[in-house]
Amino acid sequence: MTLTPDHFTGPFTGRTIAGLADDLRRGRATSAELTESALDAIAAHNPALNAFVTVDAEGAMAAARRADEELAGGADRGPLHGVPVAVKDLIMIAGLRVTMGSRHFAGHVPEADAGCVALLRESGAVIVGTTTTHEFAYGPTGDRSAAGPARNPWNPERMTGGSSAGSGAAVAAGLVPLALGTDTGGSVRIPAALCGVAGFKPAYGAIPADGVFPLSGTLDHVGVLAGSAEDCLLAYSCLTRPLGGGAEDLGRVRVAWLDPAGLFPGDPRVVRAVHAAAGPLKEVRLPEGVAATLRETYTTIQSCETVAVHADRLAAAPELFDPEVLERLRVAAEVPGWRYVRAMDARAALADAVGALFDHHDVLALPTVPIIAPPLGLRETEIDGRPVAVRAALLAMTSPWNVLGLPALTIPAGTVDGLPVGLQLVARPGQEPSIFEAARTIRPAGTRT
Amino acid sequence: MTLTPDHFTGPFTGRTIAGLADDLRRGRATSAELTESALDAIAAHNPALNAFVTVDAEGAMAAARRADEELAGGADRGPLHGVPVAVKDLIMIAGLRVTMGSRHFAGHVPEADAGCVALLRESGAVIVGTTTTHEFAYGPTGDRSAAGPARNPWNPERMTGGSSAGSGAAVAAGLVPLALGTDTGGSVRIPAALCGVAGFKPAYGAIPADGVFPLSGTLDHVGVLAGSAEDCLLAYSCLTRPLGGGAEDLGRVRVAWLDPAGLFPGDPRVVRAVHAAAGPLKEVRLPEGVAATLRETYTTIQSCETVAVHADRLAAAPELFDPEVLERLRVAAEVPGWRYVRAMDARAALADAVGALFDHHDVLALPTVPIIAPPLGLRETEIDGRPVAVRAALLAMTSPWNVLGLPALTIPAGTVDGLPVGLQLVARPGQEPSIFEAARTIRPAGTRT
Repeated sequence: MTLTPDHFTGPFTGRTIAGLADDLRRGRATSAELTESALDAIAAHNPALNAFVTVDAEGAMAAARRADEELAGGADRGPLHGVPVAVKDLIMIAGLRVTMGSRHFAGHVPEADAGCVALLRESGAVIVGTTTTHEFAYGPTGDRSAAGPARNPWNPERMTGGSSAGSGAAVAAGLVPLALGTDTGGSVRIPAALCGVAGFKPAYGAIPADGVFPLSGTLDHVGVLAGSAEDCLLAYSCLTRPLGGGAEDLGRVRVAWLDPAGLFPGDPRVVRAVHAAAGPLKEVRLPEGVAATLRETYTTIQSCETVAVHADRLAAAPELFDPEVLERLRVAAEVPGWRYVRAMDARAALADAVGALFDHHDVLALPTVPIIAPPLGLRETEIDGRPVAVRAALLAMTSPWNVLGLPALTIPAGTVDGLPVGLQLVARPGQEPSIFEAARTIRPAGTRT
Repeated sequence: MTLTPDHFTGPFTGRTIAGLADDLRRGRATSAELTESALDAIAAHNPALNAFVTVDAEGAMAAARRADEELAGGADRGPLHGVPVAVKDLIMIAGLRVTMGSRHFAGHVPEADAGCVALLRESGAVIVGTTTTHEFAYGPTGDRSAAGPARNPWNPERMTGGSSAGSGAAVAAGLVPLALGTDTGGSVRIPAALCGVAGFKPAYGAIPADGVFPLSGTLDHVGVLAGSAEDCLLAYSCLTRPLGGGAEDLGRVRVAWLDPAGLFPGDPRVVRAVHAAAGPLKEVRLPEGVAATLRETYTTIQSCETVAVHADRLAAAPELFDPEVLERLRVAAEVPGWRYVRAMDARAALADAVGALFDHHDVLALPTVPIIAPPLGLRETEIDGRPVAVRAALLAMTSPWNVLGLPALTIPAGTVDGLPVGLQLVARPGQEPSIFEAARTIRPAGTRT
């Protein structure tokens, strides 16, 4: 079993960031070569994948040459130095077109870098371009964007998942070894899982969100997509404060299987595959009623916060929105304020209820997404013969950790019907090392090593 | 000019808490005598004023005797020891009926004391009963309550203002020297001003709000009503952490007159009277647009938070609400959530805009209420020949300081047409001593000394 898509393999397929960094330092590659190979692969494959919206060949090559000069001169900025990186098309990059996947911002060129982009630059990373986002990140399918839908490298008729759709496709196709995404309800982890790569949504606020176009202020997280958990950790470490926890703790990570049936119905083949990948674990369940409250809390908070961002555009130029996004915004605009107040209260109570699951376990394991990548445009599907909304299914197992602000990693966990599925690992803030140690220990069969 | 209402004078008219405390310690009075005189006065005057909902004669006398025993035994709990106090009818008192002014809670008897009531008891205060509140504190007029309207001692056909309506009437009529109230948009300061007494809304959270029935969680403040600023300070000091600031600072309090026209139209006679009472001061204005934003922010936040409290009652038993309160709740239930999100964002920006006024001044002075007490039930009035909503007028100069959580004191500032008007003093949190020093320095003509 391999987790490389058949149709698309790029220069970074099967490579690790640590390996690339080693090559750069041993003279086996230059950043200019890596960047050129990324640009060539994007030129070759992007017409079929639509992973990239804007490619900055000139800027990337200039940055790569600077990186090479610095490294040659002994100035080493760390593991991302000279490594090509893609950035989701709603994270501001000074001087480059950033469109939020929307006709509202068709020609938008930010004046300043987002905080996380500035950190990328300080780390010496080479930004090659922007990746397709669901319009304003408002959708987990990744197939509604002014730039058109991103396509899944495993099957271009399937959705990548979203909203960090192009970031998932770009890493999965090996066009870049690393991409930034944002995750409000799963927007990093869903495309990572459906495209067969790793994706990490840190704890709330762990990567700075300034200069990132908001979807829902109290739910938005910046995250990373890469080929493996190790690469996610490496990139994350460059974008946040130093991780706590020492290596001496890491033998004692207690992982439990969180029964996904308590959250949402799942395709039994997906659940079986992910559970098998996780291996034998003690099983825990969410308390009765918590899943429904988590879903309602998520939807209410996101609806109100998102319309707060878009109300003026909604009034002034509704026709510029994608019709599906527009309809969703209009429904969200009707959510009454008292429900938002209650949702924010419920959120505090949920933190206690779910927090108790961590009293005896460090990490919860569950599927990232309970279905395989649906065909582009599909909105209703069946699970076990019962109709299910695709959006609800995509978000069901990721959005709870946004409500609670918990760090969550997805790693590849095999395939079902030739399409990848993801294993998700969740912990309390501060327990990030446990997540990555669990990922190292579990390392499902068939994942890149 | 006197600020004692003609029709109602009680045993505590013209008395100060410090004076009462002195009498208790010098053997010139006992708590039992003071309490009995309060109970007698309540019995005599309450039928006309409707200031009290529930009177706890037995419990009060028992507490008074305990206070006398303690004082006689040398156990001195401080300035409130043995002093009769009234408590607004939505602050929980263990074992006493507390109704929230609503038929929804007609027979409600709390099991535990509110935090502020527990502090009153620790201070040795004698709780004589509960005072009329506008139903669920949801109204600044004080004339819609399951217990009927409270009446203004200066003219029983006039409203007291609210929602701490009975607390204002009880102190103004000299039935008790001190009453607790709550203040979400002015509910302590409005009845204090319209009834000619002092009222202090501390900084947000300064007096604990646990066990107080919520109106709007982020706007609710517990406060005190008494005959003078000194008595408010004294009571406040028993209900909060020790005040900062030393006496050595107090000569340098810089007070500015905040032009009330920047907030709302005012009855020119009221504005003149209050301005004259404040004396000659440097004048400052709110920045353009801030007043309108403050009003909208206040209304949006309160609407959403209040309905969050009452949505279940609103669905299950709407007929138990006062019709006007019901109608207001139904309008508030329609406020969309995205407006709440924007209001909470605006609130943060307003704190900066208004905070700048304190760069060169310690205290802002302005009218507490820009009109005199309207007739009971009046909802529309005229200012300078233009129609004005009574509720909007009552709240216009007090609610900004709830939005921003700033401490604000009202002190009597004379009368207009035989009805009292109030001068309001506002400062930054932590600058409470400046407020009370300003009150001491200004001491408008005709106030009790």
